[in-house]
Amino acid sequence: MPTVRIGICGLGTVGSGTVNVMARNCEEIAARCGRKVEIVQIGARRDNPDCDTSHLDVTREIFEVANNPDVDVLVELIGGTTVARELVLTAIANGKHVVTANKALIAEYGNELFAAAAEQGVTIAYEAAVAGGIPIIKSLREGLVGNRIQWLAGIINGTGNYILTEMREKGRSFQEALSQAQALGYAEADPTFDVEGIDAAHKLVIMASLAFGMPLAFDKVYTEGISGIAREDIQYADELGYRIKHLGIARRTEDGVELRVHPTLIPQRRLIANVNGVMNAVLVYGDAVGPTLYYGAGAGAEATASAVIADIVDVARTLNVRPDQRVPLAGVTQGSQGNLDDVLPMSETKTSYYMRISAHDKPGVMSQVAKICSDQGISIEALIQHEPAEDEELVPVVLLTSRARESQLQEAVNQIEALDTIQAPVVRIRVESLG
Amino acid sequence: MPTVRIGICGLGTVGSGTVNVMARNCEEIAARCGRKVEIVQIGARRDNPDCDTSHLDVTREIFEVANNPDVDVLVELIGGTTVARELVLTAIANGKHVVTANKALIAEYGNELFAAAAEQGVTIAYEAAVAGGIPIIKSLREGLVGNRIQWLAGIINGTGNYILTEMREKGRSFQEALSQAQALGYAEADPTFDVEGIDAAHKLVIMASLAFGMPLAFDKVYTEGISGIAREDIQYADELGYRIKHLGIARRTEDGVELRVHPTLIPQRRLIANVNGVMNAVLVYGDAVGPTLYYGAGAGAEATASAVIADIVDVARTLNVRPDQRVPLAGVTQGSQGNLDDVLPMSETKTSYYMRISAHDKPGVMSQVAKICSDQGISIEALIQHEPAEDEELVPVVLLTSRARESQLQEAVNQIEALDTIQAPVVRIRVESLG
Repeated sequence: MPTVRIGICGLGTVGSGTVNVMARNCEEIAARCGRKVEIVQIGARRDNPDCDTSHLDVTREIFEVANNPDVDVLVELIGGTTVARELVLTAIANGKHVVTANKALIAEYGNELFAAAAEQGVTIAYEAAVAGGIPIIKSLREGLVGNRIQWLAGIINGTGNYILTEMREKGRSFQEALSQAQALGYAEADPTFDVEGIDAAHKLVIMASLAFGMPLAFDKVYTEGISGIAREDIQYADELGYRIKHLGIARRTEDGVELRVHPTLIPQRRLIANVNGVMNAVLVYGDAVGPTLYYGAGAGAEATASAVIADIVDVARTLNVRPDQRVPLAGVTQGSQGNLDDVLPMSETKTSYYMRISAHDKPGVMSQVAKICSDQGISIEALIQHEPAEDEELVPVVLLTSRARESQLQEAVNQIEALDTIQAPVVRIRVESLG
Repeated sequence: MPTVRIGICGLGTVGSGTVNVMARNCEEIAARCGRKVEIVQIGARRDNPDCDTSHLDVTREIFEVANNPDVDVLVELIGGTTVARELVLTAIANGKHVVTANKALIAEYGNELFAAAAEQGVTIAYEAAVAGGIPIIKSLREGLVGNRIQWLAGIINGTGNYILTEMREKGRSFQEALSQAQALGYAEADPTFDVEGIDAAHKLVIMASLAFGMPLAFDKVYTEGISGIAREDIQYADELGYRIKHLGIARRTEDGVELRVHPTLIPQRRLIANVNGVMNAVLVYGDAVGPTLYYGAGAGAEATASAVIADIVDVARTLNVRPDQRVPLAGVTQGSQGNLDDVLPMSETKTSYYMRISAHDKPGVMSQVAKICSDQGISIEALIQHEPAEDEELVPVVLLTSRARESQLQEAVNQIEALDTIQAPVVRIRVESLG
């Protein structure tokens, strides 16, 4: 049985998970790959007590791995985009294939890295960069290859989904749920990356690139976090038959591609509305297959290692085939990619909206709101009005609108906020039927 | 751009769907495959008004396609196992790769066909044989390759799932729901294949083979249909927090592999419990990745075509690579497969059980039942007892047991049915937590 020689850079959570799973399942992996997959070197600044590397060649100089002539495949698990980019470019220049779990690196520098890899006739595999152990890259790039993919929508940040789930199930505030997530190790001390949607935007852009055959367009994603979601919005959504999820959405429209990350109301009967806790799920709509959904752990040492190893095996099996006999890096062959300019500005996107308006309980407010909406071509499809709370003067009015252009909705919100019966900013959350 | 030449045999639902989707999405497919994928011949006993083949070479002699030297890949969509087997063996003998959507053929003759293909150095791809458009074969065989897969459970027959969904949501009887399914074209005039679980057994055996690296063992699957499920069992399951689904389950245990298709109570909070109507879903548990779920349309012209085309593209891309550079036919390389004898007899499997006992409302019945269970090492974990219906003498007693060996449960059922206060057979449905 031939041997494929792997060099791993980075021995953090994913690195140690990869070393452990490769050791534990080495027989199964060899039987499936038809090759012995051997770790010949590890580059890491320090050891990790979670995995035993005593029998392995470990160097503190990670670039040694990229320059090691005995390494066929470099596995980049150091994270970040500065050293990681340099490391991957060095490995490519040395004719090595690359496997990476680094979503930021692919989302922000993928176009450059893919071009360098194509130049050298090597591949970059990045299944672990999106949704942890869920084989979503493979499904988009290979499993759904016969489809014109029309849209996809994913719960692709476990921290955010955990927080929203806690808020709904336990009636916690955002701050309380965030603290809980931090205490459990689901959220970082500085949670910006997760709760403001940057992490989700990285993953979305990678999926959209594969789904639509377009270059990676990270700087064109509209990103809105979940820190503004209030308990009562989750309750009102429930009353209306919806759940609030932080979704990454990519959609092909006649006018261009929508790329957006934001809190979203989705009908609770949809399977993806019932994905809770730290779990991830991606719903993909193809013209032939219709809707398909992929669910699993989006993070964690071994779940992510599962995706890293799947990539290693794919690369190992096709180590010496011609580049055109491998699955194209970006889903489509070079030269068939679409245009970056195809991304639609957020103001041009169309969705339905949930609005919560805090009004003085004066007759006429609702007719004013309805007229403003109507003037913008927006109709009101559902409305709930509660009694004001005991010591509250303001009445919460909650409504769902028809589909409207973002710019028109914004204009309606501006006019509503200018009414003298309206005291607080209008809360506005987008709604998707995902049907 | 090179061209790969496809011959399609069979122009029924899936055949016409495949021709239509390949024509509609030909540009996308070529961009993703890096090759032009061209249908050079179709073999079909008759034309299909659902697709235009006027510009194509259509023969009534399907074996012409298997013998056509211009065909690189034969796509078998005729169904059945007699002519289809001969057709596929002929194509293989002629050095052609094969793509098939034929679950019965793979489940029953796959071991023979795979051996013949290996001998000739060609491949057989069969994504479309399981769960329609869901890329479950690819996920099991490639996406989860780093895992030791511990179990999988699937809703893999849309007809059965439609019937159970209708029974629950509309309070229909099995017969009423079946008639409805037949009227809508979801069920055949003779529905045996679907409702008795034979179709699901075909698919289960294919997935189990890939998950556990074992030969196809169709004749070892335990199969039980849904025709005995009563409305009240669905209602009682609801009361207990469960849904009844017709599952195909494969599980690796210390004593052997369980392979079974039967109605199953599953906790309603599980995502798979909420897969309704004709949709399919497969839940897979890997040691590294944990649970992952794959959901989508399990049948239909274009959904199945989506899987057929994914296979065609995979085969086309690696047409001339060495066999060991392709994904192994059976998931693992030849010689690494496990043993057929590893399949556990049904009497040895362990699950929890739902039992509905119709008893005369005499004091002492419950203590007799509890003693019988206890003597078999079975404890009762939940119990509901309703008042007898207006003109009914019998009281339905519903209980959930602890995990027990099938043979012990059967012994308990025999003893309960022998009690003189028990008039009707005990209804018994297996329970899985899928946790």
